[in-house]
Amino acid sequence: MVFWKKLFNPSDTATSPTSDHGQDLVEIKTDNPAQARIFFSTDRDIDLYELEELCDSVGWARRPLRKVKKAIECSFLVTSMWEVKGNRKRLVGFARATSDHAFNATIWDVVIHPAYQSKGLGKSLMKYTIKKLRGEDISNITLFADPHVIDFYRRLGFVLDPEGIKGMFWYPD
Amino acid sequence: MVFWKKLFNPSDTATSPTSDHGQDLVEIKTDNPAQARIFFSTDRDIDLYELEELCDSVGWARRPLRKVKKAIECSFLVTSMWEVKGNRKRLVGFARATSDHAFNATIWDVVIHPAYQSKGLGKSLMKYTIKKLRGEDISNITLFADPHVIDFYRRLGFVLDPEGIKGMFWYPD
Repeated sequence: MVFWKKLFNPSDTATSPTSDHGQDLVEIKTDNPAQARIFFSTDRDIDLYELEELCDSVGWARRPLRKVKKAIECSFLVTSMWEVKGNRKRLVGFARATSDHAFNATIWDVVIHPAYQSKGLGKSLMKYTIKKLRGEDISNITLFADPHVIDFYRRLGFVLDPEGIKGMFWYPD
Repeated sequence: MVFWKKLFNPSDTATSPTSDHGQDLVEIKTDNPAQARIFFSTDRDIDLYELEELCDSVGWARRPLRKVKKAIECSFLVTSMWEVKGNRKRLVGFARATSDHAFNATIWDVVIHPAYQSKGLGKSLMKYTIKKLRGEDISNITLFADPHVIDFYRRLGFVLDPEGIKGMFWYPD
């Protein structure tokens, strides 16, 4: 996979946005960049078991990997966050968005590994995700927020029920 | 278009669900079926000017037809409602949904021509749309409802802010 070859190449210069067959790789600064580096990517080639492990870490209900695979393939955008130490990489964050490729996008499955929370990394992943959507000329970015993350999204510029518009979920009668 | 050829053929028997190259055609009963018949379809081959006229009729802001075309192409599901009188057809309702093709779908752009409102046709169009999504094994159906249609969606089984989950919209800082 070209993406990781790049990361592990000592002459790696991918410290600014790069594009590689629709993929994208961005490094952000952390406290100790010599030991661990954080990268963002839009590459969809994510190990499903590693993603499941990440979702397990925040206590999400397990989902059939067949369906997770399809959801990743059919999402408009998939963003992931990786910690790289030496030649090891670890998936530490994930988000994806559905879209009509024209007007709107809805962000789903935002997850940050608990050990990497409260460091501003969730904010960085969301900003990266929003930037990617805006770069595709999507003007209406939406999501459905659990109560405990409403303030987190509010600080990123998300507005609750603008003009009284309410999120609704369908359940069988 | 095979769909309309069928409709206008005097020997038309399309009074129950039919499938035609992934399209779907359903007639519902109205008060006077001899003069006007209402059909639902998942055919995406919708005249963009006719759709614009329908959106104009409910006062929506105009959108670039190029983007509307892309949104229709890239939506997971497009449903439309037609009135057929003799050999004339008229677009009287529309809805579409984005999706990850696996877990969730979000319904957008639900519109019923004002002359066809308050007759149960909006309800029928939504039920048809939900049935189609459920038929694709989508379990999480969502939407963002304007204040004046919240009760309409509630009667269809949509729930407001379940477990405190809130719809949020992103706006630039």
